[in-house]
Amino acid sequence: MFLSDNWYVAALGAELTTKPLSRQILGEHVAIFRNESGRIVALADQCPHRGYPLSLGTVVGDELVCGYHGFTFDCTGTCVAVPGQDRIPSRADVRSYAVVEQGPWVWIWTGRGEAEMSLLPSTPWLVDTENWSSVGGVAKIDAAFDLLVDNLLDLSHETFLHNGSIGTPEVASTPIEVEADEDSRVVRVFRHMNSVDCPLFYSRTTGLEGKVDRWQDIEYSPPGYYLLHSRIAPVGQPPLPDGTDDHAFHMKIFYGLTPSTEDSVYDFWALARDFCINDDEIDRFLEKMQTGVVQEDVDALNILQIRTSRVPEVNEVSIKIDRGGLSARRMLATMSDARGHP
Amino acid sequence: MFLSDNWYVAALGAELTTKPLSRQILGEHVAIFRNESGRIVALADQCPHRGYPLSLGTVVGDELVCGYHGFTFDCTGTCVAVPGQDRIPSRADVRSYAVVEQGPWVWIWTGRGEAEMSLLPSTPWLVDTENWSSVGGVAKIDAAFDLLVDNLLDLSHETFLHNGSIGTPEVASTPIEVEADEDSRVVRVFRHMNSVDCPLFYSRTTGLEGKVDRWQDIEYSPPGYYLLHSRIAPVGQPPLPDGTDDHAFHMKIFYGLTPSTEDSVYDFWALARDFCINDDEIDRFLEKMQTGVVQEDVDALNILQIRTSRVPEVNEVSIKIDRGGLSARRMLATMSDARGHP
Amino acid sequence: MFLSDNWYVAALGAELTTKPLSRQILGEHVAIFRNESGRIVALADQCPHRGYPLSLGTVVGDELVCGYHGFTFDCTGTCVAVPGQDRIPSRADVRSYAVVEQGPWVWIWTGRGEAEMSLLPSTPWLVDTENWSSVGGVAKIDAAFDLLVDNLLDLSHETFLHNGSIGTPEVASTPIEVEADEDSRVVRVFRHMNSVDCPLFYSRTTGLEGKVDRWQDIEYSPPGYYLLHSRIAPVGQPPLPDGTDDHAFHMKIFYGLTPSTEDSVYDFWALARDFCINDDEIDRFLEKMQTGVVQEDVDALNILQIRTSRVPEVNEVSIKIDRGGLSARRMLATMSDARGHP
Repeated sequence: MFLSDNWYVAALGAELTTKPLSRQILGEHVAIFRNESGRIVALADQCPHRGYPLSLGTVVGDELVCGYHGFTFDCTGTCVAVPGQDRIPSRADVRSYAVVEQGPWVWIWTGRGEAEMSLLPSTPWLVDTENWSSVGGVAKIDAAFDLLVDNLLDLSHETFLHNGSIGTPEVASTPIEVEADEDSRVVRVFRHMNSVDCPLFYSRTTGLEGKVDRWQDIEYSPPGYYLLHSRIAPVGQPPLPDGTDDHAFHMKIFYGLTPSTEDSVYDFWALARDFCINDDEIDRFLEKMQTGVVQEDVDALNILQIRTSRVPEVNEVSIKIDRGGLSARRMLATMSDARGHP
Repeated sequence: MFLSDNWYVAALGAELTTKPLSRQILGEHVAIFRNESGRIVALADQCPHRGYPLSLGTVVGDELVCGYHGFTFDCTGTCVAVPGQDRIPSRADVRSYAVVEQGPWVWIWTGRGEAEMSLLPSTPWLVDTENWSSVGGVAKIDAAFDLLVDNLLDLSHETFLHNGSIGTPEVASTPIEVEADEDSRVVRVFRHMNSVDCPLFYSRTTGLEGKVDRWQDIEYSPPGYYLLHSRIAPVGQPPLPDGTDDHAFHMKIFYGLTPSTEDSVYDFWALARDFCINDDEIDRFLEKMQTGVVQEDVDALNILQIRTSRVPEVNEVSIKIDRGGLSARRMLATMSDARGHP
Repeated sequence: MFLSDNWYVAALGAELTTKPLSRQILGEHVAIFRNESGRIVALADQCPHRGYPLSLGTVVGDELVCGYHGFTFDCTGTCVAVPGQDRIPSRADVRSYAVVEQGPWVWIWTGRGEAEMSLLPSTPWLVDTENWSSVGGVAKIDAAFDLLVDNLLDLSHETFLHNGSIGTPEVASTPIEVEADEDSRVVRVFRHMNSVDCPLFYSRTTGLEGKVDRWQDIEYSPPGYYLLHSRIAPVGQPPLPDGTDDHAFHMKIFYGLTPSTEDSVYDFWALARDFCINDDEIDRFLEKMQTGVVQEDVDALNILQIRTSRVPEVNEVSIKIDRGGLSARRMLATMSDARGHP
């Protein structure tokens, strides 16, 4: 059911210590931890002996010892010790997952074959801490992955669900442009709002007052990576033809969408900005605001899951604002078909 | 499964404001609210766009605006606005339900066709506030509708489940008379207890001491309306042949039985009395006592649902006290058959 | 599914009063109580009238009165009164279960036929309070009976799950001997650890310091009775050929394993010791320690049930330490087959 031959965000690096974290990713239980050398290790979270979660075990040096009967695994998942005997059964190894730490996020390759590094999303704005400052977090949503995709691809909901923070009437009323690039596997949604009110989220951080130009350019790379280029600028000062855009404030808004089960999803987020660098007060403001925005989405999707999953054949009435979401659904369906499912 | 061509109590009028109430009635989610003109509106609680509950939306004037993307509906369920475009899709309307406010209760017609006003129960004692004072409330029971019907039709349980408030030994031991009137669709159960102890519920409110005559005359109008005529009088002073009954205290005990899902039911109740009119202290006493009685029923039926639903083929042993409940079951079955179910 | 022609622990005698206890045993709801004569009575916990749990009723004299409509039962389950009439329907009786109180435990015969007294386990150490002092308790585990059998038959888990109380490295590393006696229906597991560290559980109670000989001899009588003979002695002082063993401290550790449902089990436990007789402080210490140990098992099995029941085909990798558990499983399977299941 899942598009497993892909990279997904598995954890915030800040979550990982020698006390293993148990996370269910694409239906699989994974134990993620740092061993005492600091290396991040992700193993199947089930001991081959009697099925006990390895995440309840103990990291000793570079190895993980099961908390029930002591089966012991190295960072490749190889079983290196069992209790009461020297011979180690050949079937006692567990799966290990390729992981990459990049900025605040730890990515996991969930495919069965070799990890394809070329598919790993690049998030330079989260890594270049000299020119960009960022905050972030993660929420679990008890709703299907698809509902989160719908949510993020149609930002008209900001006007109603997030009014007071990022929503103004113009987000819902401004027409969008949509591009679906099948080859590079990206869906783009452009919403350029010129001479509109600046919502609190940006007025408080940029200091701009009155009307602004506010652009929202989405790049969604299915299945699990979403980037919103947000541009806030004084009215009538577009970027120069060479791309220079000194009058504008830029924010990159990242989402890592990681299916947990068929009906739950992790919602990793990060905000990177090219202004107020290293400003702790702005960090705290943005973290608090965005945590509130994400919680509004969580609450809405949780109830939507309950309501729509029990009435599977909800007849949707789609309109122009839905073209981004519908493009994303088509691309996901194409990727699913391409996997060779019957 | 439900007898939908009927009126059911949907809400207490006191529950309804411009903040919509979400209530599941006969399996259907309904958003009920007063618009800013004060009119009570009941709409299907699911936006046709992406399925979001309309009850989470906002009433603006006489219209309801969906809290997710702003689809807007008037009091007939007609969609009058969508975001980002002027054209409104023809499929964007939602069902509206006929509602009638009558005394403290708001009734809803759940049938697909035109509301049949002739089927709306009449509750004059709840409307004539000059000669009758009333209190009321509502409880949700996690048990099938049938269990509540059984409970209310066999009052012998008062002796055991409600002892200390309304139960005395005579309720269980006094033989009953039962009449089932198929034409007018009423089941009647008569229990006339003469020269018996007066339970606290009535001794405290009527001031009668020692023995009393206590009559309980049930009129159940399946599926959703139940009325208990309760008569408390000094011993040996029956009503006169012309119906005059000046020596007696009368209480009308109403239940609105509204299936929520297959295994849950709303239990609306109201008590009207022709004595101690406008006596706030008696109001508070009766409200507190009856809330306690209803909670005893809720607790009993909740556990009964858990126990009996897992053992579907419980072999019931029925006795004489069950004749009222068995009559009610037969009438409900007849009504169900008459609906043309295969 | 259950091996019902057996005795199981149903309750601690200390749990039983005239307020009935509701306990689900081998899937059957049972109401257990002492009547006013002090006799322990166990009846099917479902009134034949409308299915209400009899455990919510009231004991009056030697009888139990249903809390809903007053059907009344004597200690044999015979219905002796119903409300509103003198004739008692012949089908109104409920099943009663044979029970035996023996030391702190109340055993129940769950078979359909006559209780076989010869199958009742003998627990003399729990009855002989002159030479043995004991403490005990009960926990409910939301895990299948099989997982508790696995747990108790393989004590190597003490090293990892119960380290700090009863676990030391030698429990896991010491080889075991296993005997399965099909005729007398006992699985025995011997683990004799000589000259090993004394865990806190025993050092604090025996006063022994430094190395000790520690023997763990399990006798498991499937399905529901488990006894661990624990022997702690100064190094190199084995029992004499005639069985005399004056230098050693003996503890008998009992478990009553009583399936509640297919996926939950009661874990009754008791500890009897032949030292520090009637020492309240040692009682409290052991009760606290063992309650902690049992809770560690409960937590582990609860999570194991969730994890393994959703992945039914966990491929187990068994090793030498598992031979006791595997023997137990085989004997349980044989007993199940012998019942004549297809």
